[in-house]
Amino acid sequence: MHFEWPVRIYWEDTDAGGIVFYANYLKFFERARTEWLRSLGLAQQRLRELTGGMFVVGEARVRYLAPARLDDELIVTARLAEAGRASLTIAQQALKVPTGVGAEPLLLCDGQVRIGWVAAATLRPARIPPDLLLQLSSSSRP
Amino acid sequence: MHFEWPVRIYWEDTDAGGIVFYANYLKFFERARTEWLRSLGLAQQRLRELTGGMFVVGEARVRYLAPARLDDELIVTARLAEAGRASLTIAQQALKVPTGVGAEPLLLCDGQVRIGWVAAATLRPARIPPDLLLQLSSSSRP
Amino acid sequence: MHFEWPVRIYWEDTDAGGIVFYANYLKFFERARTEWLRSLGLAQQRLRELTGGMFVVGEARVRYLAPARLDDELIVTARLAEAGRASLTIAQQALKVPTGVGAEPLLLCDGQVRIGWVAAATLRPARIPPDLLLQLSSSSRP
Amino acid sequence: MHFEWPVRIYWEDTDAGGIVFYANYLKFFERARTEWLRSLGLAQQRLRELTGGMFVVGEARVRYLAPARLDDELIVTARLAEAGRASLTIAQQALKVPTGVGAEPLLLCDGQVRIGWVAAATLRPARIPPDLLLQLSSSSRP
Repeated sequence: MHFEWPVRIYWEDTDAGGIVFYANYLKFFERARTEWLRSLGLAQQRLRELTGGMFVVGEARVRYLAPARLDDELIVTARLAEAGRASLTIAQQALKVPTGVGAEPLLLCDGQVRIGWVAAATLRPARIPPDLLLQLSSSSRP
Repeated sequence: MHFEWPVRIYWEDTDAGGIVFYANYLKFFERARTEWLRSLGLAQQRLRELTGGMFVVGEARVRYLAPARLDDELIVTARLAEAGRASLTIAQQALKVPTGVGAEPLLLCDGQVRIGWVAAATLRPARIPPDLLLQLSSSSRP
Repeated sequence: MHFEWPVRIYWEDTDAGGIVFYANYLKFFERARTEWLRSLGLAQQRLRELTGGMFVVGEARVRYLAPARLDDELIVTARLAEAGRASLTIAQQALKVPTGVGAEPLLLCDGQVRIGWVAAATLRPARIPPDLLLQLSSSSRP
Repeated sequence: MHFEWPVRIYWEDTDAGGIVFYANYLKFFERARTEWLRSLGLAQQRLRELTGGMFVVGEARVRYLAPARLDDELIVTARLAEAGRASLTIAQQALKVPTGVGAEPLLLCDGQVRIGWVAAATLRPARIPPDLLLQLSSSSRP
């Protein structure tokens, strides 16, 4: 089971090659992770005020399979692939919504992002608050 | 007298129109203002730690006269146009460095940015520290 | 009458001051203009293929009145303020959606963006296709 | 042997966590690759005009080890790790230039980026022009 978030491609996302600049998929992935947390009632600004902690990215991998272009409509997914005490690995994809009838979504890129929980003031790694971890884990059960 | 800062155009700056995306000139303007402050010994992270204050933008105007493209080399300028107690108006330009011998720089865009001094914690307007103001003003004397 | 488009604030939009970086409002304004055109059946990638033309920004002005922060929900507006043969002036605002019951939206910034029609290949100014102009003008009647 | 390129951290690069947003390191990596190509006489806009081809990213991996902040000075490296007929793998690092005397640069992140040569018009994979490949390979000999 995974979370899905729509992303539209604007001028700001494209480059002179006529396609979406490769770094911008990491923005789209971040938006989907944020909205997935929000859908579980976990707004990050509030989490930080309540717990003094925040997620930071420890590792990211992306494979680019096909380009997106101006005006394209994407679906960006997020799925909990692995959960540790201090970090989570999120599997993510970006797919292009087909314009023709009966056509299949086209996989544009996929990747994995490892996020770790840190104290916001010091950026030192810390244990993910157990409630938060429980909520994230149960949201991803099949 | 004005401050000059070189900016190179990379893929990240361009859009699918083949030219630099219009919002990115505000990034270039900000870089030039930051380097102008730094050239006066005023690094912003340190200013904030020392004074608890920072500059925020209150108003920006840009006229776009000619486009920049991938690999272009720009000169971005900053000049103090007006100094008040709580805000400054900076006049800025972006010019394209000519590639041919004897050619003149081409004005790509110009604008004005008004920056105000605020307390970083509350974002409330505050008086610019007098030392800072003095240094900025004297740096722009003809 | 104006067009409205929702924009959510993500990590990518903010800066180390804890607020949205000033250049990014020009991205939000562009998204709203694009969606306004799309709502009239005018997708820009298709317009370019059909007419060989595209809009480029000639001038932008923004006044920043209050900051937006991570997780804020904004409404960005677009309204045709002036229509010429070769260029349009769009009046735009960004407002913060209030979180409390009965609260009013807060105006964060407003501005004007003049966009000109150009031949995509040469970037030379050209007359806006009359059909396009008609559609834009009639969409803004009170 | 590797290529080195200096990158300064500006407001645009940071986020509300007070550190550089994770996607932006892919911008810095791209700048270093571009400047490495330029140092070999291979400007990308010109390459495209001459050969009809361009590089696109096929895969990227980044490990984030320590954060960069506003005003930090980075060195970004690029080194040819693997060369095939149609794609290259570039090993890259971002290091923080120490401010204290005698201090060592601090590794902030490292990664690998695989870039493939494509025909710019169709985005179909193509053989890297042999001259280009030769120049890139010989630049990385120990």
